[in-house]
Amino acid sequence: MEDFIVKRYPERAIYDKDKLYEFLDRNILCHVSFCENGNPFIIPMIFSRIGDFIYFHGSYESRLIRFIGSGGNVTIGITNINGLVVATHIKNNSLNYESAVVNGSGEWVEDEDEKLRFFESLSKKFIPGIWEYSKRPDNEDLEKTAVVRVKIEKFSMKMREGDTNEKEKYDNLWSGVIEIKYNYVYNGEINELPDFLKSFIKFEKN
Amino acid sequence: MEDFIVKRYPERAIYDKDKLYEFLDRNILCHVSFCENGNPFIIPMIFSRIGDFIYFHGSYESRLIRFIGSGGNVTIGITNINGLVVATHIKNNSLNYESAVVNGSGEWVEDEDEKLRFFESLSKKFIPGIWEYSKRPDNEDLEKTAVVRVKIEKFSMKMREGDTNEKEKYDNLWSGVIEIKYNYVYNGEINELPDFLKSFIKFEKN
Repeated sequence: MEDFIVKRYPERAIYDKDKLYEFLDRNILCHVSFCENGNPFIIPMIFSRIGDFIYFHGSYESRLIRFIGSGGNVTIGITNINGLVVATHIKNNSLNYESAVVNGSGEWVEDEDEKLRFFESLSKKFIPGIWEYSKRPDNEDLEKTAVVRVKIEKFSMKMREGDTNEKEKYDNLWSGVIEIKYNYVYNGEINELPDFLKSFIKFEKN
Repeated sequence: MEDFIVKRYPERAIYDKDKLYEFLDRNILCHVSFCENGNPFIIPMIFSRIGDFIYFHGSYESRLIRFIGSGGNVTIGITNINGLVVATHIKNNSLNYESAVVNGSGEWVEDEDEKLRFFESLSKKFIPGIWEYSKRPDNEDLEKTAVVRVKIEKFSMKMREGDTNEKEKYDNLWSGVIEIKYNYVYNGEINELPDFLKSFIKFEKN
């Protein structure tokens, strides 16, 4: 675990598994880091968590999928930026954020029920209600899709929130936090949408 | 370069340096992948690009900063999600996104003018106008801050945009794109803000 003990700003560290899982479950994008022949690689991936595993899907030809499936060790990073912390000194500007880093080794998921549970978990995170609304994968779809999972063996989280910690303000300049909000927007006709989307999105005509 | 040739969905690949730089310059967060003793690590970092280099700053104690400063090879991933592509089949749901992966080796930045240019570049990307408004770093600040840079030696980009490619629609279900918009929001009194922030943010009282 030593590698996963946060050394910089340790007061921002979190080692609570429930908090990790809650954070993973409201994110869909991660970056996966892996090494081959000592060289670092990084690939953005969509993911879903079930139990103590992080699941990925893709093609059987995909290099990362094959790497994970064959037991490869990966480290996964997920970060949300929630705000810009404006200080009076340029050097004290900061971001409010949440981040998690997870490490573990992979394996193939062959069982079709488990593959289906992965699709269910991922799509429920994608948009609530879409699993109930849409055409689900059949046996042929599940066979064609490569699914792998990584056991969550080590992890750490960090977060920063709140105002600037600036002790010395400069020249009465303004300081404070600008929040970042993520909105789901649809530009078309509201009435044509199914109900699960109406409650999910914010309408904004251009 | 072979490692950086996109094999999956090659039609989504971009190898244009101007497009890469434009993309880097409107992002502030990346994930840095590196290997030590064959093990993969990932760390979220804020960055700025000047010329053909990606700059990072931090503490002289930071493991990643020291790794990059001493010539370490890193691969950097940056991804934006721009939309949710809703298909009629669960298996055809997708994301609209832009992503870049950059690889190169690092070095220390010791020159104080170059460190200052880094702070200028980063803060102009953080919030336009903040560099002109705020107290800039002095020589002592620059000395205390560790700055490193990575030469952009190899890169690849991918993007997906537009509607679902679904050929076979299921049961007349709805399909289309839900956009994701990022808004800067301030919850306080507008009048107390300096001008550079008034034009930057969207006001939204809770």
